[in-house]
Amino acid sequence: MSVAARLAELELTLPEVVPPVAAYVPAVRQGDLVYTAGQLPMVNGELPATGKVGTGVGLVDPEQAQALARQAALNGLAAAASLVGDVEKITRVVKVVGFVASDVTFTGQPQVINGASQVLQEIFGDAGVHARSAVGVAVLPMDAPVEVELILEVA
Amino acid sequence: MSVAARLAELELTLPEVVPPVAAYVPAVRQGDLVYTAGQLPMVNGELPATGKVGTGVGLVDPEQAQALARQAALNGLAAAASLVGDVEKITRVVKVVGFVASDVTFTGQPQVINGASQVLQEIFGDAGVHARSAVGVAVLPMDAPVEVELILEVA
Amino acid sequence: MSVAARLAELELTLPEVVPPVAAYVPAVRQGDLVYTAGQLPMVNGELPATGKVGTGVGLVDPEQAQALARQAALNGLAAAASLVGDVEKITRVVKVVGFVASDVTFTGQPQVINGASQVLQEIFGDAGVHARSAVGVAVLPMDAPVEVELILEVA
Repeated sequence: MSVAARLAELELTLPEVVPPVAAYVPAVRQGDLVYTAGQLPMVNGELPATGKVGTGVGLVDPEQAQALARQAALNGLAAAASLVGDVEKITRVVKVVGFVASDVTFTGQPQVINGASQVLQEIFGDAGVHARSAVGVAVLPMDAPVEVELILEVA
Repeated sequence: MSVAARLAELELTLPEVVPPVAAYVPAVRQGDLVYTAGQLPMVNGELPATGKVGTGVGLVDPEQAQALARQAALNGLAAAASLVGDVEKITRVVKVVGFVASDVTFTGQPQVINGASQVLQEIFGDAGVHARSAVGVAVLPMDAPVEVELILEVA
Repeated sequence: MSVAARLAELELTLPEVVPPVAAYVPAVRQGDLVYTAGQLPMVNGELPATGKVGTGVGLVDPEQAQALARQAALNGLAAAASLVGDVEKITRVVKVVGFVASDVTFTGQPQVINGASQVLQEIFGDAGVHARSAVGVAVLPMDAPVEVELILEVA
């Protein structure tokens, strides 16, 4: 099944490419790989939530953070697809790094970044299964709760 | 000398591959490279210690953290060896990233991650010498004190 | 225009290669890529400033941090140029990761890491435009305010 068909079946549309917030580009191809910039979970140019992830007053709920990680991954795919011209040219998800702005007591980064990992597997099937690191950082650009970067294989 | 012989001389046995704690795989090959997932210092399915690294009451001692970084690197090697089928196929350690869950006053991340770097050099000799980043993060999955990821060249 | 001519025009001299602070090397080549180690903004063997970046008493000013990120990028270029023998062999900046030791209220990591991104673009022009991640971490080695790593394409 084509990636486009799979996206349709999942009722997913790749978002518009998010413009970089500074002096870089959303993705670069080198050889068979596309490296994306770190993607924030922007939706129509805005962050749906800001702050640190954790459990407690004033923190971003881990379930909401998981949805944000999914959005960040979709933004990364959109950046890569735009660069290579066609989402069908993405042949493999190689590596994902997920940064979670974390309250220092919050240790559920893997579950948060599953939001990114799972949508990639839904879209690409076996080719979407990847190596991954998830870490809890102090703070992210624009106070985003998550940031996700991708290394993708392209044809 | 073969890698297996070197491991024997060092009285080291590669650990069992640690199952991922979420929706990803321990390692992915793309071309001549293997990217490992971020490896926690699991021993027989458990973390030998948890918490932030630093000097003071309630913190993980830097020397213990160094031993944990060594364990995480061995877990990464095990993941890569399992993927390519034979540890002898690992021809070069290219890059190591070490994340240290750090008390904000602790600045000895390089010495902690030396636990990973040194065991890779003991095992692979000149081919084990790599580029490396070490950073101090707020918190890691499962409250692990360290997380290490590897990029390895394979034959 | 050659890279050397561009450096001269910018009145820039690549610094001496900064010796690693632990058991690794400043850069490794694998295929067409050079991976640098995480570079601290060392100048003549010393950090011009230490501490967390933010706005307030006792913090490193974001503008100063931007200058430090620029220095770290130059140190990375120096490491890569030394490894491949000639800065002209660097054909493309592929990826930059910038870690900013951040006060938890500071969310301007992109502007800080622009110090690295902009100097790379000044030197390499279109070939210096790269994918990038910027994150705010708890603390960095030697209490450095920034750490920058590069992936470069080489001929």
